[in-house]
Amino acid sequence: MAEEFEKKEIAKKSKNFSRWYTDVILKAGLADYSPVKGCMVIRPYGYGLWENIKSALDEMIKSAGIKNAYFPLFIPESFIKKEKEHVEGFSPELAVVTIGGGEKLEEKLVVRPTSETIIYSMFAKWIDSWRSLPLCINQWCNIVRWEKRTYLFLRTTEFLWQEGHTCHATHEEAKKEVDRALMMYAKLYQEWLALPGLMGKKSEAEKFPGAVDTFAYEMLMPDGKVLQGCTSHDLGQNFSKPFKIQFQNKKGKLENVWQTCWGFSTRSIGALIMAHGDDQGLVLPPKIAPNQVVIIPINDKNNEAVFKMASKLKYDLEKAGIRTVLDSREEQTPGWRFNEWELKGVPIQMMVGPKEVQKKIVTLGRRDQQKKWEVDLNKVVAETRKTLEEIQDSILDESRKFLDDNTHEVKDYQEFKKIMTGKKGFIKAFWCEDPKCETKIKEETKATSRLLPLDAKVEKGKCVCCGRSAQHRWFFAQAY
Amino acid sequence: MAEEFEKKEIAKKSKNFSRWYTDVILKAGLADYSPVKGCMVIRPYGYGLWENIKSALDEMIKSAGIKNAYFPLFIPESFIKKEKEHVEGFSPELAVVTIGGGEKLEEKLVVRPTSETIIYSMFAKWIDSWRSLPLCINQWCNIVRWEKRTYLFLRTTEFLWQEGHTCHATHEEAKKEVDRALMMYAKLYQEWLALPGLMGKKSEAEKFPGAVDTFAYEMLMPDGKVLQGCTSHDLGQNFSKPFKIQFQNKKGKLENVWQTCWGFSTRSIGALIMAHGDDQGLVLPPKIAPNQVVIIPINDKNNEAVFKMASKLKYDLEKAGIRTVLDSREEQTPGWRFNEWELKGVPIQMMVGPKEVQKKIVTLGRRDQQKKWEVDLNKVVAETRKTLEEIQDSILDESRKFLDDNTHEVKDYQEFKKIMTGKKGFIKAFWCEDPKCETKIKEETKATSRLLPLDAKVEKGKCVCCGRSAQHRWFFAQAY
Repeated sequence: MAEEFEKKEIAKKSKNFSRWYTDVILKAGLADYSPVKGCMVIRPYGYGLWENIKSALDEMIKSAGIKNAYFPLFIPESFIKKEKEHVEGFSPELAVVTIGGGEKLEEKLVVRPTSETIIYSMFAKWIDSWRSLPLCINQWCNIVRWEKRTYLFLRTTEFLWQEGHTCHATHEEAKKEVDRALMMYAKLYQEWLALPGLMGKKSEAEKFPGAVDTFAYEMLMPDGKVLQGCTSHDLGQNFSKPFKIQFQNKKGKLENVWQTCWGFSTRSIGALIMAHGDDQGLVLPPKIAPNQVVIIPINDKNNEAVFKMASKLKYDLEKAGIRTVLDSREEQTPGWRFNEWELKGVPIQMMVGPKEVQKKIVTLGRRDQQKKWEVDLNKVVAETRKTLEEIQDSILDESRKFLDDNTHEVKDYQEFKKIMTGKKGFIKAFWCEDPKCETKIKEETKATSRLLPLDAKVEKGKCVCCGRSAQHRWFFAQAY
Repeated sequence: MAEEFEKKEIAKKSKNFSRWYTDVILKAGLADYSPVKGCMVIRPYGYGLWENIKSALDEMIKSAGIKNAYFPLFIPESFIKKEKEHVEGFSPELAVVTIGGGEKLEEKLVVRPTSETIIYSMFAKWIDSWRSLPLCINQWCNIVRWEKRTYLFLRTTEFLWQEGHTCHATHEEAKKEVDRALMMYAKLYQEWLALPGLMGKKSEAEKFPGAVDTFAYEMLMPDGKVLQGCTSHDLGQNFSKPFKIQFQNKKGKLENVWQTCWGFSTRSIGALIMAHGDDQGLVLPPKIAPNQVVIIPINDKNNEAVFKMASKLKYDLEKAGIRTVLDSREEQTPGWRFNEWELKGVPIQMMVGPKEVQKKIVTLGRRDQQKKWEVDLNKVVAETRKTLEEIQDSILDESRKFLDDNTHEVKDYQEFKKIMTGKKGFIKAFWCEDPKCETKIKEETKATSRLLPLDAKVEKGKCVCCGRSAQHRWFFAQAY
C-alpha cells in the first residue's frame, strides 16, 4: 500500500463519480476486491468505521430493551418456502449448500438471505402465553444474496448487518415498534453518520417480500440518485400464521402474534463515502471516524523535542477520549503522510514541528474545510473537542442543504422528466397509487416511487403520470 | 419458558453429568437446538455471556496493536487445496455451496471451516516490502465444520470465534507472537472465566493441519476429561510458500513471510458451564456474568416502600457500573423468581422486603456458597463490589484446587490405566514421542497426548508405554 500511494491518482469526484468512489475505497484501505466473485474484503480501516457505527446502534437497540442472540447461518429449503411472497422475493438470490461432510444432503440448505424463517421457527417454540410477549431479539450477522452486478459496500453478495425481530400481542404495539426502529435509524444516520434523509412508507411494489408495510430512510447522493439506508417492516400476521407463532391471551384464547423486523447494513458505509467525500478523498464524521485526530511530527533531523511534544499531545488527547493516531514514519515525508491521512478523511490534522515547539503551539487543520490555525498547547484538548463537534455539525448542515436544494415539487410530467434527465434528486409529486403508473414512470424516467412521507395528509390532486385523481404526494427518485 | 420452569427438574450434576449439562443450558436459556442438524441457537442469555467474553478478548487483541477486519464467508475450492495437510485435515468437515443465484457454480465454494486460505490470498496482494510488516489482523466471525455427533457449545456444525492471523519478517518474531497470543488466552481464561488450565505444545498427531507447531490451553472438566480451550499456531512458511506471500527485505531481496494464527471460540462457554455449575444450575464468574446482581422485591400486598427501595437500589448499583436486574414479576412468587435466577447463575441475590425497608438493610446471598447476610443500605454498593471480587477469586481457587488434585504423575503404565478407568484427570508421564505409543495409549485408555509443558526440560526417563528412553514428560488425558 505504502508505495502505491504516490503512484496512483484518484479520479475527481465531480468528473467521474463512480470511478472516484472505487478509487477512494481501495486507496484509503476501506475495502478490497476478493477472489470470491461478488464478495469484498472489509479492511481494518473500513472495519473500524463499521465497529463505531455498530457500537452506536447496538447501544440504541439495547437501551430499547432488545437483546442480541444468534441463529443458524443455514436455513432448510422448506422453511424459506413457507411464506409465499417471501420465497418469490428471495429465490433468485440464494446460495445453496448441497454437500455436507462429503455427502449429498437430503434437504438442501440455503445460506441466510435474511433470517425470518429460521428465527420464527424458534419463536413458535419459545412463545406460549401473553407472559412471553413482547419477545424482542436482534442479531448481528453476515448475509448472502447472490448478485450479478456488484458494487463495493453498496451491493455485494455477502454483507454484514443487524436484523431485529419482534413479536407482540397486538397490531398496534407492533406498529409502534416499527416506528421506534425507523426513528432509531434516523437518529443514527443524522447524529452519527451526518446523513440527513427522508422517511416514509414504501409502495406495494417496493415493499419487503412478506410484509404488510415497509418503511424506509432514504438519502440523496451527490449524483442525484437515492440510496435506501435501512428498512423497518410491519409483518402483521403474515409469518406468524404459516409458522404457527401463537400465544394464549389473558382470556385463555390462542392468538397469532403480530410481528416486526428491521435491518441496517454495511451498505450505510457506501452512503457515508459518497455523501461526504471530496476530490482529496474521504471526509469522515468525527463521531464514527476510526481516528479523530492525526498528529504529524515534522521531524527534520530527528528533533527530539518535536517527538516529545507529539507523544505528549497524543497522550493528552487519548486521555480525553479522543481517538488519536501519531504518524511518525521516518521513511515518508510529512507532506506524504499528510496526503495519506487527508485521503483517509481524518477530521483534524495536527502539525508539530520546531516552530510549534518553540512557540508552544500546535497547528491544527480541518479536513472538511481548507482551514489551518494555531492553538496554544495548553488549550489544544478543549479546542479539539469543540472543533470535532463543529465538524460533525458542519458536515450534516452541508448534506442537509444539498438534500433541500435537490428536493423538487413538480406540477407536471414534463418537469418530472426534465429533472430526471438533468441533475436528478428527489421529486415530490401526486401519484394515483396505480402500479401501472409506477411502472410507466420507471420505464420512462428510471425513477421509482421511493416513499410516502410519514406525515402525508390526504389532499386533492392529479396523478403526475396519468392525470387521474390522486390523494397523496409521493417521493420519486432514481435509486441505487 | 416461564411455565416450564417449575415443571421440569434438572438432573443432578454428580449423578448424570452430561444430562445435567444439557438441562442447564436449555433451562437457563443459554441456547436451544435448532431445526438445522448440528446447529444451535444462542439465546439472549448465552449471547450476553459471549458478548462479555468477546469484549474482554477484543480489548486485549486491540491493545496488542492488532486490528479487526472481515473476509468472505466463501472460499473457492481450489484455495483450500493449496496447502496439502490443510486440505486433508478439513476435507471431511466441509459444507459446500454448489448453486448460486439459481445456477450451478463453475467452481464450488466452501463455507469457511477456518480462513487461512482466503485471508492469505489477500495478504499476498497487500504485502510488498518490509514496510508492510508485521501485518496483524483479527476476524470475529462464524465458522462451519460438518460434525456427525454434536454437543451444545462444545461441538456444533456452526460456531462463532475469532481468528488472528499475523505475518512477520522473521521466524523469531512470529514465535513471539504465537507465545503472546497463548498468554493472552491464558489471562482471559484465568482472570475472566475463572478457568485455570495447562499450557503447552501439541504432539505431531494433534497439531493443526498445516502448522509447524501448535500450542494450546487445556482445562480439566469435573468428569475428569479435558477440554482444549484455544490454540495458537506457528505456521512457519508453510502457507506463505504456496500462497506466495513475499516481501522485499531491507537489502532488496525477496523472502517469504513467517506466519501465525490463533483462535478462540464459543466452545469456551461450554467449559464455563461444566466447570463452575452445581446441582442448582449455573454459577457464573462475576466479570462475565450478563447480570451480576439480581434484586428480588418481596412485594406482598404491593408494598410501595419495597418497590421504591428496590428501584433505588438498582439505580445505585448500575450507577456504580454493576450489571443489575430487578425482577418484580408479580405473576411469580419471590421464591420462584429466586430459583430461576439461581439456575441462571447470577453471582449475588438481593432480597428487599418489608423487613429490609424497616431496618434499612438489604439481605444479600452468594450464588457460589450457601451464605446469606444483611448489609446496611448505605454500604451495599461497596459490599457488592467487594463480594463480586471475592466470588471471582473463590471460583478460580475452587477450580485450581480441582485441577491440582486431579493432575497425577505416574510411574508405570498400570497406574496410568488405573487412573483412566477411575476418576481420570491429567496424567504427567514420560513418552518417547513415537506416534505408535500415542496410538496404543489411546486405544487402551482413551487418553491422548495433550501437551508438552512450555517449561519442559530435557530429562532422562523411560516411556510409560514402551519403556524405551524418553526425554520429556507429557500431559495425557481423555479429551472432549
